Amino acid sequence: MKALVYEGPGGKTWSKVPDPVIVDPQDAIIQIDTVTICGTDLHILGGDVPEVEPGRILGHEAVGTVVEAGEAVTGLRPGDRVLASCVSACGRCRYCRQARYGQCLGGGGWILGHRVDGVQAQYARLPFADLSTHKLPPEVGDETAVMLADILPTSYEVGVLAGRVKPGDTVVVVGAGPIGLAAILTARLYSPSHVIAIDTAEARLQAAKRFGADVTVEPGDDPREVVRSLTGGLGADVAIEAVGVPETFELCTTLIRPCGHVANIGVHGRPATLHLEDLWIRDITITTGLVDTFSTPDLLAMLGNGQLDTGPMVTHRFALDDIERAYEVFADPARSGALKVTLSRA
Amino acid sequence: MKALVYEGPGGKTWSKVPDPVIVDPQDAIIQIDTVTICGTDLHILGGDVPEVEPGRILGHEAVGTVVEAGEAVTGLRPGDRVLASCVSACGRCRYCRQARYGQCLGGGGWILGHRVDGVQAQYARLPFADLSTHKLPPEVGDETAVMLADILPTSYEVGVLAGRVKPGDTVVVVGAGPIGLAAILTARLYSPSHVIAIDTAEARLQAAKRFGADVTVEPGDDPREVVRSLTGGLGADVAIEAVGVPETFELCTTLIRPCGHVANIGVHGRPATLHLEDLWIRDITITTGLVDTFSTPDLLAMLGNGQLDTGPMVTHRFALDDIERAYEVFADPARSGALKVTLSRA
Amino acid sequence: MKALVYEGPGGKTWSKVPDPVIVDPQDAIIQIDTVTICGTDLHILGGDVPEVEPGRILGHEAVGTVVEAGEAVTGLRPGDRVLASCVSACGRCRYCRQARYGQCLGGGGWILGHRVDGVQAQYARLPFADLSTHKLPPEVGDETAVMLADILPTSYEVGVLAGRVKPGDTVVVVGAGPIGLAAILTARLYSPSHVIAIDTAEARLQAAKRFGADVTVEPGDDPREVVRSLTGGLGADVAIEAVGVPETFELCTTLIRPCGHVANIGVHGRPATLHLEDLWIRDITITTGLVDTFSTPDLLAMLGNGQLDTGPMVTHRFALDDIERAYEVFADPARSGALKVTLSRA
Amino acid sequence: MKALVYEGPGGKTWSKVPDPVIVDPQDAIIQIDTVTICGTDLHILGGDVPEVEPGRILGHEAVGTVVEAGEAVTGLRPGDRVLASCVSACGRCRYCRQARYGQCLGGGGWILGHRVDGVQAQYARLPFADLSTHKLPPEVGDETAVMLADILPTSYEVGVLAGRVKPGDTVVVVGAGPIGLAAILTARLYSPSHVIAIDTAEARLQAAKRFGADVTVEPGDDPREVVRSLTGGLGADVAIEAVGVPETFELCTTLIRPCGHVANIGVHGRPATLHLEDLWIRDITITTGLVDTFSTPDLLAMLGNGQLDTGPMVTHRFALDDIERAYEVFADPARSGALKVTLSRA
Repeated sequence: MKALVYEGPGGKTWSKVPDPVIVDPQDAIIQIDTVTICGTDLHILGGDVPEVEPGRILGHEAVGTVVEAGEAVTGLRPGDRVLASCVSACGRCRYCRQARYGQCLGGGGWILGHRVDGVQAQYARLPFADLSTHKLPPEVGDETAVMLADILPTSYEVGVLAGRVKPGDTVVVVGAGPIGLAAILTARLYSPSHVIAIDTAEARLQAAKRFGADVTVEPGDDPREVVRSLTGGLGADVAIEAVGVPETFELCTTLIRPCGHVANIGVHGRPATLHLEDLWIRDITITTGLVDTFSTPDLLAMLGNGQLDTGPMVTHRFALDDIERAYEVFADPARSGALKVTLSRA
Repeated sequence: MKALVYEGPGGKTWSKVPDPVIVDPQDAIIQIDTVTICGTDLHILGGDVPEVEPGRILGHEAVGTVVEAGEAVTGLRPGDRVLASCVSACGRCRYCRQARYGQCLGGGGWILGHRVDGVQAQYARLPFADLSTHKLPPEVGDETAVMLADILPTSYEVGVLAGRVKPGDTVVVVGAGPIGLAAILTARLYSPSHVIAIDTAEARLQAAKRFGADVTVEPGDDPREVVRSLTGGLGADVAIEAVGVPETFELCTTLIRPCGHVANIGVHGRPATLHLEDLWIRDITITTGLVDTFSTPDLLAMLGNGQLDTGPMVTHRFALDDIERAYEVFADPARSGALKVTLSRA
Repeated sequence: MKALVYEGPGGKTWSKVPDPVIVDPQDAIIQIDTVTICGTDLHILGGDVPEVEPGRILGHEAVGTVVEAGEAVTGLRPGDRVLASCVSACGRCRYCRQARYGQCLGGGGWILGHRVDGVQAQYARLPFADLSTHKLPPEVGDETAVMLADILPTSYEVGVLAGRVKPGDTVVVVGAGPIGLAAILTARLYSPSHVIAIDTAEARLQAAKRFGADVTVEPGDDPREVVRSLTGGLGADVAIEAVGVPETFELCTTLIRPCGHVANIGVHGRPATLHLEDLWIRDITITTGLVDTFSTPDLLAMLGNGQLDTGPMVTHRFALDDIERAYEVFADPARSGALKVTLSRA
Repeated sequence: MKALVYEGPGGKTWSKVPDPVIVDPQDAIIQIDTVTICGTDLHILGGDVPEVEPGRILGHEAVGTVVEAGEAVTGLRPGDRVLASCVSACGRCRYCRQARYGQCLGGGGWILGHRVDGVQAQYARLPFADLSTHKLPPEVGDETAVMLADILPTSYEVGVLAGRVKPGDTVVVVGAGPIGLAAILTARLYSPSHVIAIDTAEARLQAAKRFGADVTVEPGDDPREVVRSLTGGLGADVAIEAVGVPETFELCTTLIRPCGHVANIGVHGRPATLHLEDLWIRDITITTGLVDTFSTPDLLAMLGNGQLDTGPMVTHRFALDDIERAYEVFADPARSGALKVTLSRA
């Protein structure tokens, strides 16, 4: 089959590789129908995730069709159309038993395209297949469903739920890329009074408005001033970090009110400064997290009944064979305007 | 009357000053029976709390007897023996209505010995007296009760409750001064399996054991190794920071397991480094806070019925007139072995 | 002045009575601008609330203008336009300090039109005025605001929040009178997937749809079947009881799934049967409650910014002098189609 | 092998039956080392659980040694010593993914000795073996461990945790049989100020004191009066029902304070009366539940390190072959003084 193979920092090729096979009785093999690229994949190519070894097939977000299931797989049969979740779960360790699948100690967690071969390929092996996939109802299309592989549950769990967004809140989302936009979309489920989007790209701020931001802060504006003016000088209830650099994290800590929450979603490569000399007295809560995907069934139901619309998220569509071009488009959003790009088999 | 007056960084005197008077109908005047000194007072004298103006009477932890109550005070009468809490509460602002009194927007919060004159004096004015005092039952002595003015509720609310200590947890307390010891004592209310105390002073580690630590980490030991060996390599459930310097905060963030909590109680004067490049993926929660004192009635009841014993906390006792010597003893615990010092009127 | 005076079961008159005066320094006197009638007032007239004594002025939901404030009132001045909340709060007792104002032990709770004279009058005395009123911004009209005196916070706190409605839930509301409709409206803040309204009156089911119910169950339908068909046979996540008779409460307990919640808002006069032989094993939670009004400021802000629209709630408007006729209309909704009726001064 | 076979209401025999075999690849077969009898077994024999069919082997609480494991079992090997939990879990259904294993929709939940053959036998088949067993460390003896198969996690999860016991609370436990005693023991983990035990048998009240009750209410006493006198007239924070008859449930609802919790553990065969005419206004919470066993690993650790001592729970010991006599002793506690009886193989 063909697959996108990581060749070390900066390198990747759409190469011929052996077809995946069942290794463990809990595995399933799927044929990839639709797959997408994540900002994390760019981090890997940039050399920021050194545990990814050359030769690894990338990708952790796909929709596919089961072609084979191991003997211990009880819930899947060949022909089933499934979402391949970015997080796998052994189901038996301490963390899995508390639905904290992202921290699985039994061989799961984020492994696809990271510690085992991923889904940017024609076929893929999915470990712990019963607990790491979700059967898709026919009314949810591939493009919609693939947004559930990572960005929607990540933004919802690590941003909105960890940040404890409530009705009437003022929520700031720093970074209006796909993750930030998904945070805006899912924050709206809790009816905040204001969702303020901060980004440096005008096009992304426009997208933020389409996903539900009612206020946007452009590069020239002072975000502290904007937040203060909307909150009687107090600060935001919740700030969601969706960029992954020290400056945006530190900004978040200055935007919240006493007793407010900073929910970090961004993937960071460098330490940030925590101004405890200001913050120690302000009753703040900071959370970090990898998605657990416990919310995926709920989000899937809300996509199915129209409560959530991820339509505007996909800006570019490619054939699977064009994946190298898709990476170029995705990696240059300032020029391409790309949010999420999808690749589908013929 | 006589009072301990702050004279700017480094300076304080036990001086003759005018007696306090009722300024607002919600005020009460108390005669001080027993008062203590807080590490925060040393920070003020060190110049770390610049909003404290020269001329301010210090102190925010006392037991006293009401001598006069303003017209709007409904719950106190002359002769009532009360605890003067370190936090005052207007009772009417957004924060007070949510029992977040430490963040009071109506003129309360931590004001005694900070923004208004404090209680290291023969008499003191207590604003918002109804909500800022607790009547003391006769079975709770002064020395016991004065530990409830600040350190017990602070350690319990900002450390134990914010850190979500649960039965069976492994809890690390970094810093075994009065605040850390009170955190150990109140953490025990939740039956953790291990309470690990870390400090550089052997005497304080011995005190930690008396208050309920079952493991102590001495300067030569590697705390990460100790925690790992007790937790199957995972890390602690909760780390409570009770020192207030960047190094101890950063240590806390390395001691917790994925999904663990860092509860910061320490008063910080400098920023810390937050290693988001490691922490972003670990589902951690960091909290800061000023005490709200919502737990004071419960703690008072538990002191009254013998569930909590703060006896070993008080190491030195002075007459109120000897307060300058008491400061010397308290400021030099390495030599004096002081934990809390109390001062009482003749 | 004129006021609606209770004369014992079945009796009431719009009578001339003495003007109210300040009794306690925390009191305020307001001139009533707009007032409404509650189902509870009908219960009182029906003799179901025996602690209400003849001679009592009824009413606990009003908007008014402050004409006098006691000496201990700090937040109100003559001329202020305020919401008079159905729940008063001493602010100092154990329950008030936990924002459980409905259970105030210090003389508050539901007292207006119950244990002290109420607001169906030209003027009213409001005890604990600072904590029992909310200043109204000019953009929130009287008719909108008066829905916040009782029904919106009651339905939100005792129904939606106690029932823990979450995004994606299936919520059943039994009873589509004013309280049930307010529960539907405020449940929508949490983006449930379905809100099912059950009532015997077709007009109320139509109103339920206007307030956000997507499914209605009419008298001929089997509500269990409707709920099962929408939930894969499992049952609803939350059932909100908004009638107050044993049959509707018992219905709620049969409609929820294992681990579901029954949130009782209804005012009951008779015991219900709890089928523990079925329920003991089903992990259910049942809650009851009187409103605390802690959510009133948030709801007021959401009314102000248009997130909530109570407009369709008011079906009939009267002059204050016509209050006896207003009672007739309100007491006969089957004929009049009344939801809430408002009365305003000339 | 020999096993205790249910023969319809009133009948049971220690009979020769075929050895169990692996049916599903997730099964394991264990040899029973120690087993106990549950009050629920008596209910089955009394005909109260009609879904149990004649021919069924009873029992759902055992410690055993693995003799065979199915192909899909990854965590167990022959020779492993395990706790067989009363609740099995498919690990894949909606409820299992939320750690609500008691409500498993995938074939688990309480099945042993109920819907499939149980563990009062020489050998037993354990479905979903990976998720339904807990490996035992050598320092935890059989008799201690078998208390974790049902009564400790049941009392802790359905009583103490569902009832939200907190430090300083007053907790009432109605019924001092094995479940009630385990509730007392595990409630103590949260440092309540008072644990009040109510029972009609003096011997059980004595046992209650050994497990941590500080107050007992004997048949002649008025429990309402006792509770009121300890709580300033308010009522208990939490009442735990551990009997299973309407009268004790109804008693619980009268013993709690406004905002209090009733946590029902008892297995009920008849409906109770819920006095909503009193309770609608009191902000109470009532919970029911079947154990999920999510707490079993934590409780096991606390047994291992000595934080919990179930020693006094076992009053009688038998050889497995003497099980019919053991039932007689267990079924007549008034005469035998039995709490838990254990049966072990030679």
